[in-house]
Amino acid sequence: MYKDNPLRQISWLDFQNLKREEKGPFFLRNGRPYHALIAQQFDRPSLERLCDLATKIRRIGKTKGGLHFLQSLLSEKRAMLYFAQPSSRTFLSFYSACQIVGLHPAEVRDTTTSSEIKGESPEDTVRTFSSYFDLIIMRHPVGGFAERIAWLLSNTDRPIPVINAGSGQDQHPTQALLDIYTLQRSFETRGGIPRKKIAFVGDLARGRTVRSLANLLTLYPGVKQYFVAPESLQIGADILENLRAAGASYELSEDFEKIIPEVDAIYMTRIQDEWDTAEESRLLDTARFHFTARHLEILKPDAVLLHPLPRRKEIAIEADQDPRAVYWRQVRNGMWVRAALMLEIFDRSSEIVKYYDDLTS
Amino acid sequence: MYKDNPLRQISWLDFQNLKREEKGPFFLRNGRPYHALIAQQFDRPSLERLCDLATKIRRIGKTKGGLHFLQSLLSEKRAMLYFAQPSSRTFLSFYSACQIVGLHPAEVRDTTTSSEIKGESPEDTVRTFSSYFDLIIMRHPVGGFAERIAWLLSNTDRPIPVINAGSGQDQHPTQALLDIYTLQRSFETRGGIPRKKIAFVGDLARGRTVRSLANLLTLYPGVKQYFVAPESLQIGADILENLRAAGASYELSEDFEKIIPEVDAIYMTRIQDEWDTAEESRLLDTARFHFTARHLEILKPDAVLLHPLPRRKEIAIEADQDPRAVYWRQVRNGMWVRAALMLEIFDRSSEIVKYYDDLTS
Amino acid sequence: MYKDNPLRQISWLDFQNLKREEKGPFFLRNGRPYHALIAQQFDRPSLERLCDLATKIRRIGKTKGGLHFLQSLLSEKRAMLYFAQPSSRTFLSFYSACQIVGLHPAEVRDTTTSSEIKGESPEDTVRTFSSYFDLIIMRHPVGGFAERIAWLLSNTDRPIPVINAGSGQDQHPTQALLDIYTLQRSFETRGGIPRKKIAFVGDLARGRTVRSLANLLTLYPGVKQYFVAPESLQIGADILENLRAAGASYELSEDFEKIIPEVDAIYMTRIQDEWDTAEESRLLDTARFHFTARHLEILKPDAVLLHPLPRRKEIAIEADQDPRAVYWRQVRNGMWVRAALMLEIFDRSSEIVKYYDDLTS
Repeated sequence: MYKDNPLRQISWLDFQNLKREEKGPFFLRNGRPYHALIAQQFDRPSLERLCDLATKIRRIGKTKGGLHFLQSLLSEKRAMLYFAQPSSRTFLSFYSACQIVGLHPAEVRDTTTSSEIKGESPEDTVRTFSSYFDLIIMRHPVGGFAERIAWLLSNTDRPIPVINAGSGQDQHPTQALLDIYTLQRSFETRGGIPRKKIAFVGDLARGRTVRSLANLLTLYPGVKQYFVAPESLQIGADILENLRAAGASYELSEDFEKIIPEVDAIYMTRIQDEWDTAEESRLLDTARFHFTARHLEILKPDAVLLHPLPRRKEIAIEADQDPRAVYWRQVRNGMWVRAALMLEIFDRSSEIVKYYDDLTS
Repeated sequence: MYKDNPLRQISWLDFQNLKREEKGPFFLRNGRPYHALIAQQFDRPSLERLCDLATKIRRIGKTKGGLHFLQSLLSEKRAMLYFAQPSSRTFLSFYSACQIVGLHPAEVRDTTTSSEIKGESPEDTVRTFSSYFDLIIMRHPVGGFAERIAWLLSNTDRPIPVINAGSGQDQHPTQALLDIYTLQRSFETRGGIPRKKIAFVGDLARGRTVRSLANLLTLYPGVKQYFVAPESLQIGADILENLRAAGASYELSEDFEKIIPEVDAIYMTRIQDEWDTAEESRLLDTARFHFTARHLEILKPDAVLLHPLPRRKEIAIEADQDPRAVYWRQVRNGMWVRAALMLEIFDRSSEIVKYYDDLTS
Repeated sequence: MYKDNPLRQISWLDFQNLKREEKGPFFLRNGRPYHALIAQQFDRPSLERLCDLATKIRRIGKTKGGLHFLQSLLSEKRAMLYFAQPSSRTFLSFYSACQIVGLHPAEVRDTTTSSEIKGESPEDTVRTFSSYFDLIIMRHPVGGFAERIAWLLSNTDRPIPVINAGSGQDQHPTQALLDIYTLQRSFETRGGIPRKKIAFVGDLARGRTVRSLANLLTLYPGVKQYFVAPESLQIGADILENLRAAGASYELSEDFEKIIPEVDAIYMTRIQDEWDTAEESRLLDTARFHFTARHLEILKPDAVLLHPLPRRKEIAIEADQDPRAVYWRQVRNGMWVRAALMLEIFDRSSEIVKYYDDLTS
């Protein structure tokens, strides 16, 4: 338990000084994810493995017997969902994923009911909450706090895995996983993600979702990424540098209508004006970056339309009925891929593979 | 899944223009309730079936083996309890009912923790929440919103049943079911509800409970209804018209003490001053419509006293010990009848009947 | 169910007039705890029985098979966790304990979502909430309220057990149980609690934890208690009188550093300034009563350091790594002893003993 725990062999100071790319190995055990903290910890084989597992879980879950089998997998374990930041949708996705694999969940969602008010350190609070459980799934306003907790618990005599369900403006790794899974599933019969053209549209400066996904897509050969946004909301220079370093192809644009007919996938995003410092978003003409009913006509017949939700006016409701609109399926994909992740963490994936093989043979 | 879904074959506009009485068939599948949205969707056979089922569930639940059997019935399914309006008692009743039939529940109760704040439409919010689950049980401040959701989900590729746990000032159909079940159970050995005299007392103008129940009682022959209230809180003219149209007998009164010895059941209600526009309730002498300890002496020996709770001063605490006071039993009846409803929705009632027959044969 | 219910045979007025020590028998059935309401209801045999049971549960819980066995014990039952006062840590401890023994939990934590707002009496609220469940675990700001509910429910036709999870400034009996269990476990190989020297440090005037524990320790022969605090926060005269009446040895001190090397256990506490009436705590120099890293050197090699948590600055973080620091283990002990208590209440302890014997034979 201790020997193969790399976070026990590094000081917090040294760990903090690592680059993102260097941190990944500290979150693994025997090549599998043990913690899930940053999108950068996943390489292409681990992403493909998670996608494959998610699909098998989804198919097994189509029958009553299959659902009961899934529920049996982690039924002796219990998970803490600690959401110090409000997010019903991410919460419910994780909660459902726990239920699917039988993990008994408990929750702290309303931060005002916590004893933090008594002057306890945030580390003590989470360590106390984690004491009763086998897994902690946490969302926290402070960037990097989930990593801090993973390091801290690793250095106690009761280390447990930590899943980051969103920290600050920074990381939301399971959102990246579900996006990858949705793309992979959409292109399943067309050779997968490699060599696809994928456009990101809207608020690319502030959405952690897009930033993580853009990085992960460099793992797939031949993908071309389009960043379609008003200048002030364009994707960060750091991401573009990552793309260049990885030899990935990309294009910046303000002309959404020109891009629509060219691409295999469009990833729409919401203007995140909750991060505005002076209502600057209001001054923008963002309507040019909305997907309207009319755009359905110029979208490729086999392209797909994604959105991490919630949406405001970025996508016309009329598009919901179109088979290329996969954002509602994307919601459920989050549940399946999170269930897959939990099974990976607890090393129970092989039972899925075996059950699935028996089912389909 | 699609073909036998009547809500898929009508536009929202056309649906909205239907009368209450005409909507019922749209909520059924093969004669069973699929959605439970309005009290008017239940006819007498379906009410009697639910009551019978609730009684069987209650009796099966008296042993450990029976409870385990009940828990197995829907154990592969999961339910979303979305309570956008506070109500711990209705919430707990549904939550317990889920637990009894094995449905794994998840909840959103504190509306401030939802992403609705980000400008999402209420429809998108509920559709997202429902994505992970097999059933949605919802309470919402907007009248008709549960119907809207049922129609909306029916027109997606993942329709699931919707139970209305209270919408606006309007509908609370499972409260009506539990009231009917409490009356039926109280009169079980005396020929059931037909031909009974039933008084409603208190705030009859604003209680959706009384309005629903008064309508449903017209399905039982020979029932006479008494509406006992100060003039400004009397039952609505629309309800009286319904009663006349159904040929049901009724009487209006302000003299509570005269009515008490005449009736088989008294349904007390609370003054709902939360709907006051100018504290008008304070000006009323409502004490005349309280059931006091002294009234126990003039109540018929086999009559029953109901109250949907919470109570304030409408019923003296001394009455709690009297065997004719059934309002605490009424609370538990809600749990049983809601469990019965869920089994009907998922078409598992026949297993109850079979288990019960084996038990009693 | 009724005959052996002593709370049914006493009026509320008479019950209230009993002394603490006289109340205990009213909470028992056949010598086992049925309600758990006050620390004083436990005698030494019942404490030792609970500790023994907690240890067996803990050990059985080390394997998957053992965890499944534990989950089966109360799987037909359901518990209500009613926390009208915020406390995530106590809540989670009880919630986890329920999950461990298979009890299905439901919760009301946010008091603003309750119908209490409609003018209902607190008794009616809790009686309604309890209607659906087999056990109620409650935390309430009003001292004695849990006793009131236990008496009230005992006098209905559906009595269920009540566990006090903290009431007012007054009682928190399961905290006392977990403290006793932690001491017992710490001294397991050294003859247990008898004849140990135990120091309480900090805010002894206002901590209900210390007050309860000091009383319970009089049940163990030869224990010497040290109360180390600034004068204005010293332990109450009533507790000292109890100790004298029980023939227990004690000492008051303001010199923490002199006491540290003398004792077998140090129980640190937090200054409870939430009870301040005029910020009086700020005027105190409480740093003298902090356990610092330096103190680890003068602490006996086999002594233990406890804290009920949350801590502020009473214990330096450096101490966390020391094997004598048992406050994190103390957290988990709470879960085990609460699980033991639930099994005692429902008379299922003998199955634990049998399973454990089979396991170790």
